[in-house]
Amino acid sequence: MALRSIHPGDTIGILGGGQLGRMLAVAASRLGLRSHIYAPESGPAFDIATEYTIGSYDDQAALTRFADQVAVVTYEFENVPASTAAILQSRCAVHPNPNALSKSQDRLIEKTFLNSLGIPTAPFLQVDDAGSLARAVGQLGRPSILKSRCLGYDGKGQSLIKEGSDLAVTFRSLGGQLAILEGMVDFTREISVIAARGIDGSFAAWDICENVHEHHILAVTRAPANVPAQIAEKASAIARTILDALDYVGVMGVEMFHVEKARLDGGKDHHLLVNEIAPRVHNSGHWTLDGAVTSQFEQHIRAICGWPLGSTKAHGPVEMRNLIGNDVDMWLELLKEPGLCLHLYGKHEARPGRKMGHFTRIYLKP
Amino acid sequence: MALRSIHPGDTIGILGGGQLGRMLAVAASRLGLRSHIYAPESGPAFDIATEYTIGSYDDQAALTRFADQVAVVTYEFENVPASTAAILQSRCAVHPNPNALSKSQDRLIEKTFLNSLGIPTAPFLQVDDAGSLARAVGQLGRPSILKSRCLGYDGKGQSLIKEGSDLAVTFRSLGGQLAILEGMVDFTREISVIAARGIDGSFAAWDICENVHEHHILAVTRAPANVPAQIAEKASAIARTILDALDYVGVMGVEMFHVEKARLDGGKDHHLLVNEIAPRVHNSGHWTLDGAVTSQFEQHIRAICGWPLGSTKAHGPVEMRNLIGNDVDMWLELLKEPGLCLHLYGKHEARPGRKMGHFTRIYLKP
Repeated sequence: MALRSIHPGDTIGILGGGQLGRMLAVAASRLGLRSHIYAPESGPAFDIATEYTIGSYDDQAALTRFADQVAVVTYEFENVPASTAAILQSRCAVHPNPNALSKSQDRLIEKTFLNSLGIPTAPFLQVDDAGSLARAVGQLGRPSILKSRCLGYDGKGQSLIKEGSDLAVTFRSLGGQLAILEGMVDFTREISVIAARGIDGSFAAWDICENVHEHHILAVTRAPANVPAQIAEKASAIARTILDALDYVGVMGVEMFHVEKARLDGGKDHHLLVNEIAPRVHNSGHWTLDGAVTSQFEQHIRAICGWPLGSTKAHGPVEMRNLIGNDVDMWLELLKEPGLCLHLYGKHEARPGRKMGHFTRIYLKP
Repeated sequence: MALRSIHPGDTIGILGGGQLGRMLAVAASRLGLRSHIYAPESGPAFDIATEYTIGSYDDQAALTRFADQVAVVTYEFENVPASTAAILQSRCAVHPNPNALSKSQDRLIEKTFLNSLGIPTAPFLQVDDAGSLARAVGQLGRPSILKSRCLGYDGKGQSLIKEGSDLAVTFRSLGGQLAILEGMVDFTREISVIAARGIDGSFAAWDICENVHEHHILAVTRAPANVPAQIAEKASAIARTILDALDYVGVMGVEMFHVEKARLDGGKDHHLLVNEIAPRVHNSGHWTLDGAVTSQFEQHIRAICGWPLGSTKAHGPVEMRNLIGNDVDMWLELLKEPGLCLHLYGKHEARPGRKMGHFTRIYLKP
């Protein structure tokens, strides 16, 4: 299928109707583009999208109609079924390419791929049954973490294996899913690189983000991360290696552990291990909406349209905090704080653990 | 009618479907609000609004249905008929209040109002017929400018009266509209104050803007304006006087002439004359989208919702340029410039004189 170049006035197709789709649709509108959301049910993006289709990800007829109405398709989440991507790709451009999806949907494939690029990860072993779990625990020790290979996010599908944990019970808790066992990493901090790659191979990354998770959900991101300059450069270089290897087009979030180890001479050794890759705009990049010249959402739209990448220059040191569940009840107090930028996603029900919005403080004292 | 307080999830009603309505709808979505555009015909705002109604401004039934579906109504242009505002105000909150509309719809009323506050304007005289025009020209001299009292924008409804102009012909060129004659002002620069006032009387203004018009249409805005600090403060104080006098809620653009006159001692005298007021977000405030902590669009939404005003701190010196007509063909070249922020309005046809988008350069060297 011949691909045509994309112009203002064209329509961007987005799989998924959550807050990421919503912010992508807004970014598209800034550049004179229309948006068409495709999702199985209504969501925050529907309030702002130009068009929407409610359809399942295996509805071939609906997907075909959708693909024929848009100039390019992108997605707000990595668990797009391969068959869905294939249907779309036969009718229109899909960015990032489905190869990036397949690499990030399965933790075993993801880590094997990263290691094949020479990029370190936590030690991991394949776990298919209770027997292989026992052998893996024997090798990686306790504590270690059993993780389902697929469909895990925000800590779902994970079990900590401690001294005394019953391995058979732990394995059954995953409901028979294929899994990996990961060795524990004694990290100093979690960081992420939000990076973009254009169709021409151009690359741009924002300041490295430092992330704090609470109950397995991102709570706070600060940028720039409190790491030495050469570690920031190395983190960015690792991201570029991944994006290049995937011939990636769009924005990706690359989560890493920064490990510091004291040396005998009193100095420190620094190591970076990649934890996971998210082939989409990423929660730890939300600060770029208020804190940088180009937001990750606009950058993603520029990239998938084949347009030049924008500047990732930051306005100053920033902190982003998520509003999880009832945190959102603070909205009026937050609006009173001078210089705070509030974003609410328009979700009707503040369920526990649900991301309802976020806010950014910019121009922090470094 | 009892007014209730406005919460995230509520719907903002916007009269007018142009680019200002579009950018207001985006700003509403950031704060978790829905938007409902009411306009006589489809326009750029329809691509992004949650809901829309196509209806005329005298369709009482459609206006009533619209008012009953929204928490507050605002507008993107000052020529909302008084009868339309009255219908809406009987059903829901309308901000800014219609008094501000009535003051800005008629140049005679506007300038008389400003002078009544002690705010200087260009000299002006009422012109109802060819005879009163002749007397006014006798008083204000030539060159002077005949302007229709109502519905003029971007230089429409204006005629320059020079030496040799035939006054009867000039008067007829206005098509019999009521008019004023304005004396020419030998100004150094045009500036504008983009200012907001909250429901509680709080006030916030951005850096003073310096504006260049070409063919009577705004071409360039630079902020901060190249004026002495005390003139910037005086301009802001004038805006506050106007907003307070109108018990104004929302963002207003106040256009002024800065007149410098050499003194005998070698110094300069500075004067500020108000040219016109726009009771809405204003083209010369578009740079705040990329160049300030809070944009004029978000500020307007905060104000009309009765929420606290945000910070107007600028990221640095900025320049905004409008893309008029075929200027928009430059879009791809503009995207290539690092640090340039491009905004396109999604208009289909680039007619001469039509505002198709704008771009902002931030972090200029002062």
